[in-house]
Amino acid sequence: MNTVLESLLNHRSIRKFQNKPIEPETLRLILEAGTRAANASNLQRYSLIVVDDPVKKHLIRNDAMVDNPTMIIAAADEYRIKRWFELNEAPFYYDQIYHLLLACWDAILALQNIVVAAESLGLGTVCIGGILTRDLRRILGAPEYVFPAGMILVGYPDEAPELRPRLPLEAVVHQNGYHIPTDDEIQAFFKDKDALWQALSEEVRTELEQRGISNWAQRLTLGNYNPDFMRSENENILQHLREAGFKLTQDK
Amino acid sequence: MNTVLESLLNHRSIRKFQNKPIEPETLRLILEAGTRAANASNLQRYSLIVVDDPVKKHLIRNDAMVDNPTMIIAAADEYRIKRWFELNEAPFYYDQIYHLLLACWDAILALQNIVVAAESLGLGTVCIGGILTRDLRRILGAPEYVFPAGMILVGYPDEAPELRPRLPLEAVVHQNGYHIPTDDEIQAFFKDKDALWQALSEEVRTELEQRGISNWAQRLTLGNYNPDFMRSENENILQHLREAGFKLTQDK
Repeated sequence: MNTVLESLLNHRSIRKFQNKPIEPETLRLILEAGTRAANASNLQRYSLIVVDDPVKKHLIRNDAMVDNPTMIIAAADEYRIKRWFELNEAPFYYDQIYHLLLACWDAILALQNIVVAAESLGLGTVCIGGILTRDLRRILGAPEYVFPAGMILVGYPDEAPELRPRLPLEAVVHQNGYHIPTDDEIQAFFKDKDALWQALSEEVRTELEQRGISNWAQRLTLGNYNPDFMRSENENILQHLREAGFKLTQDK
Repeated sequence: MNTVLESLLNHRSIRKFQNKPIEPETLRLILEAGTRAANASNLQRYSLIVVDDPVKKHLIRNDAMVDNPTMIIAAADEYRIKRWFELNEAPFYYDQIYHLLLACWDAILALQNIVVAAESLGLGTVCIGGILTRDLRRILGAPEYVFPAGMILVGYPDEAPELRPRLPLEAVVHQNGYHIPTDDEIQAFFKDKDALWQALSEEVRTELEQRGISNWAQRLTLGNYNPDFMRSENENILQHLREAGFKLTQDK
């Protein structure tokens, strides 16, 4: 087992950070490690937006969790390349689904390198999925063809959590074709989630059951992230994509 | 500079591989490192499909480059969780753009961990963007709600390429807001690409100029990946997404 593997296999997400800023040279080093990642587009079609301004951080996520850490947003960015194409009289057609997904891919490769680099320097990170629904144009002045692909909080850890369970490898890995699992396999894959339900206090479980929630899967889908909430979040995303100029349907 | 950073900063993509298979325990270790990555969904909504069958590899990419290495496809996967929701009588609504993008994010985090793990063990990798346009249902029997997010080839390197240039950090990194670059900044960011044009032989440059291509940006956009080709590739992607059951527009 080498040092790199040890670091990867011991990843913990950190949700509580010290009130201690990241040194500028450390921040620069992890960002540089990000940009050394491969990029599927060969054109680095992403931007990394570092947010440490308290007001902007809270516009992005209004929660005390963001007080101490720095945010790094990895955004799909077809705007920079569009500007270069224009200066070279080359056509721009990177506004389609392929280019959006390729740019998101680039962005997340860089973001994960930043995570690995940060952890090697004693920093901790956590992914914040909600960034997908945020309006980067309004909050951060992003131009057309820029869209959030991912975000982490990064800072010095103020907790040392246990390793979290993962699905068994055979749930995730398929060989030469997609293995359609049996019902029993599915139940076995997710048994850690069922254990989370059992671990709830009698009081919490009773309260949830009164709201019609009687297992962990229902807790995930009928709680805060319920169908109505997600429908409106999806409307936001589609509006931001349209405003950013991306086409998700085909011109006929 | 620690070992992890050294590894990240020295990444090279490898496009030529030895005819030497990856040992099963090595493959298992890098896949395990992949699944230890953070996941933005908290539900590992991705699958890793390992392809070493020569016929299937060539159905995915018909090119001698894939003869020696193993393919690892990281796919957004809302199917597995749907099955678990069904068994728990929880509603499924992860067919929307938010969930697709979140699952792609999860998939690419795992994929980049696999890259970093592989390189620490002497393996080399390269990202293959074209996977986005492939029909996983037809080629690999993928069920509904599965869509390719990324792919690498992985194997023992048969080349030792130089470090490739990257955009300067100030082209990619923004602080507390998106910096709209000036035309001069854009030209400076991409000067390595202009140098690639200058480095072409007189003969190649003349041949391209006869086809109306007079700089590197035009070579990228008017060559094989021209607007007509990409329009048809995008039609494929949209069709696969529809067939997989993903909604890219909002129900009214």
